[in-house]
Amino acid sequence: MDTERADRVRKALQKEDLDALVCRLPENVLFLTGYWPLSGISFLLYPREGEPVCIVPHCEEQEARQVLDGVACVTYRFGDLASGDMHDQVGKLLWNALRGMKIRRIGFEGGFESVAPPWNAAEPAVSAAATAHVYKKAFTGVHTRDATGILNQLRARKTAREAEAIRRCNEIARFGLQAFQDGVTIGKTGIELVAEVERAVMFRGTDYQGAGRVRAFAQVATGTKETSLGWRPMEIASSRALAAGDLALLELGVVADGYWSDRTRVRSAGEPSTRQREVYDLVLAAQEAAIRAVKKGATAGAVDAAARAVMNGGGLEKEFLHITGHGLGFRYHEPIPFLAPRNETILEEGMIFSVEPGAYGEAFGGIRLEDDVLVTESGVEILGPFEKRLAG
Amino acid sequence: MDTERADRVRKALQKEDLDALVCRLPENVLFLTGYWPLSGISFLLYPREGEPVCIVPHCEEQEARQVLDGVACVTYRFGDLASGDMHDQVGKLLWNALRGMKIRRIGFEGGFESVAPPWNAAEPAVSAAATAHVYKKAFTGVHTRDATGILNQLRARKTAREAEAIRRCNEIARFGLQAFQDGVTIGKTGIELVAEVERAVMFRGTDYQGAGRVRAFAQVATGTKETSLGWRPMEIASSRALAAGDLALLELGVVADGYWSDRTRVRSAGEPSTRQREVYDLVLAAQEAAIRAVKKGATAGAVDAAARAVMNGGGLEKEFLHITGHGLGFRYHEPIPFLAPRNETILEEGMIFSVEPGAYGEAFGGIRLEDDVLVTESGVEILGPFEKRLAG
Repeated sequence: MDTERADRVRKALQKEDLDALVCRLPENVLFLTGYWPLSGISFLLYPREGEPVCIVPHCEEQEARQVLDGVACVTYRFGDLASGDMHDQVGKLLWNALRGMKIRRIGFEGGFESVAPPWNAAEPAVSAAATAHVYKKAFTGVHTRDATGILNQLRARKTAREAEAIRRCNEIARFGLQAFQDGVTIGKTGIELVAEVERAVMFRGTDYQGAGRVRAFAQVATGTKETSLGWRPMEIASSRALAAGDLALLELGVVADGYWSDRTRVRSAGEPSTRQREVYDLVLAAQEAAIRAVKKGATAGAVDAAARAVMNGGGLEKEFLHITGHGLGFRYHEPIPFLAPRNETILEEGMIFSVEPGAYGEAFGGIRLEDDVLVTESGVEILGPFEKRLAG
Repeated sequence: MDTERADRVRKALQKEDLDALVCRLPENVLFLTGYWPLSGISFLLYPREGEPVCIVPHCEEQEARQVLDGVACVTYRFGDLASGDMHDQVGKLLWNALRGMKIRRIGFEGGFESVAPPWNAAEPAVSAAATAHVYKKAFTGVHTRDATGILNQLRARKTAREAEAIRRCNEIARFGLQAFQDGVTIGKTGIELVAEVERAVMFRGTDYQGAGRVRAFAQVATGTKETSLGWRPMEIASSRALAAGDLALLELGVVADGYWSDRTRVRSAGEPSTRQREVYDLVLAAQEAAIRAVKKGATAGAVDAAARAVMNGGGLEKEFLHITGHGLGFRYHEPIPFLAPRNETILEEGMIFSVEPGAYGEAFGGIRLEDDVLVTESGVEILGPFEKRLAG
């Protein structure tokens, strides 16, 4: 059990005058228990005092019990002919769990418009009318309110155990970065690179330091036209073969037992142009300057400013058109901290975020470098460091 | 433009006394326009009369306009430093779109607890408090109600164009089934098989009959203990190597430009046991019997009964513990039809669903076969047919 996490959550609940949290999004079940739901249909009642209760489908009981520690595990029947209505069962179990607790005010996850998928990423499960109905029936006489802000705030500062899990994920991501570095050659397509990167992460990452369920989401854009669109939130891999001097831009999300990393590398097929080398060197210098600016007590805006000063100094003000980074860990992207111009969030020990300056232009393509860093007691740690080379 | 779809939606709106639908889930934007949102943050106002309006982030405009036909495309700024608040912008655009229409009653997608991911599957976007707030502000004086039931009902019966897209996806899935058939050998791990299957689908599927964005979600369980858990909604691939006589069970979801297929195959590494062969033959016979029972006018329960009669006749009543199939196409799983015992849904021309009997036991492992079928005017069509062989 992560007692550091439990202490912080309980203090926050006290401060916010909440007696409990109820969650069903996989990322929040993970956050509060360490268990990453397989199908995304596990529920959690987390009281300020007493033992939390995690409600899982019976076909996940084995995996849940392997992880749950200091959390009661109760099951409902799901997916076979003997199963009754899922929501009826969950509602009754919530009601039962609540009976033993003194609870008048419950916070729920009402504001998550971006969600992390469960292991079964092809079909995420989320809160909608049925969940609202379950809560309404189970929590008769209890005041409920949206605790999204509280959850996001708590999630921003990782405990030592959480940082370790996100570090491990970043180390696993390196297998994908290596496959990309080795794989970018003239004639290769974006799709082939995606397959190579995803295979390397899953193949070499599963069982790495005990990681059980590992998956990569790689996106590789190829060529000037495609990569220069790379400031948008996704790349599209195509069957277009890399020609001499083309860039390949890898955007790599990796999840290992529910914890995420977010990395980017760019490589040239054959010799890059002089301009590409210049821009690459500036982006690299901007990333290094930003990382040097990371320390507890600094503002998120100061880190952004450090990257931007280098880019602007190199004449790339207009080409660096996105933020410098964002929180992450329980999801691919988290809202705190947000490394944007003038953002006044104070960096705290335990925060984990991406540092990802980039420049996009039709003359050279898209060039971005992204690593994840942890704010430490004495400075900053790059998680799963891995070399950066445009070519060679 | 799919006029068959537009006609049906408009008739349903009239019958339900709704003047419009508003959607933001990628699967429903796809369903109503044919456009599969990249990031999942596109919104759609679909009036009973007049032109629908699709609101997309500016960084997806190019892809959206390539597909949108008979639908106005308006953009908001997203993801760069010049972007304002996303929800403010979307709210204003919805408000503007509404001004030109006579709308008093709008249906929204309030009940989707399982969702299809957008192209950017690592971080799906869904409706929560911010969307509810946008609707509340934009639809002042307009009555809103949950149209989930109407959408699910409409989605159940595919148009000719939709069936073509789902057929193409099933044809693409065959590349994965082939890779699995070729790949199951003694010493191979579940993870390697996942990587081989996913690579084959993406590599050979992209550009197949014009498919642009293709992705596979393969899950492979290996060995008796793991595969006999295979009646649950997911498999977990591990680094366990297949030994002689082990089974490998592939659960394969494929998405091609937003349209889904759902297939399962099982293979033996080396020679299967006599009992495994017996069970396999029964499962195959049950699947064939169920497919023969598919015709318009029959009930979903009758198809289930046809499969169950074969399984029960072979003494596998207790081992076949899940339903025979489910609707699919705009998502991996759709609720209509639901091929369960005594289900009275009448099968209609255009319905697409899986047929997937299976048996699970510690003596032999997990054995399931799954294909997707289309109810036609004169009978049934198996989509993307592909051979089935336990070994050899």
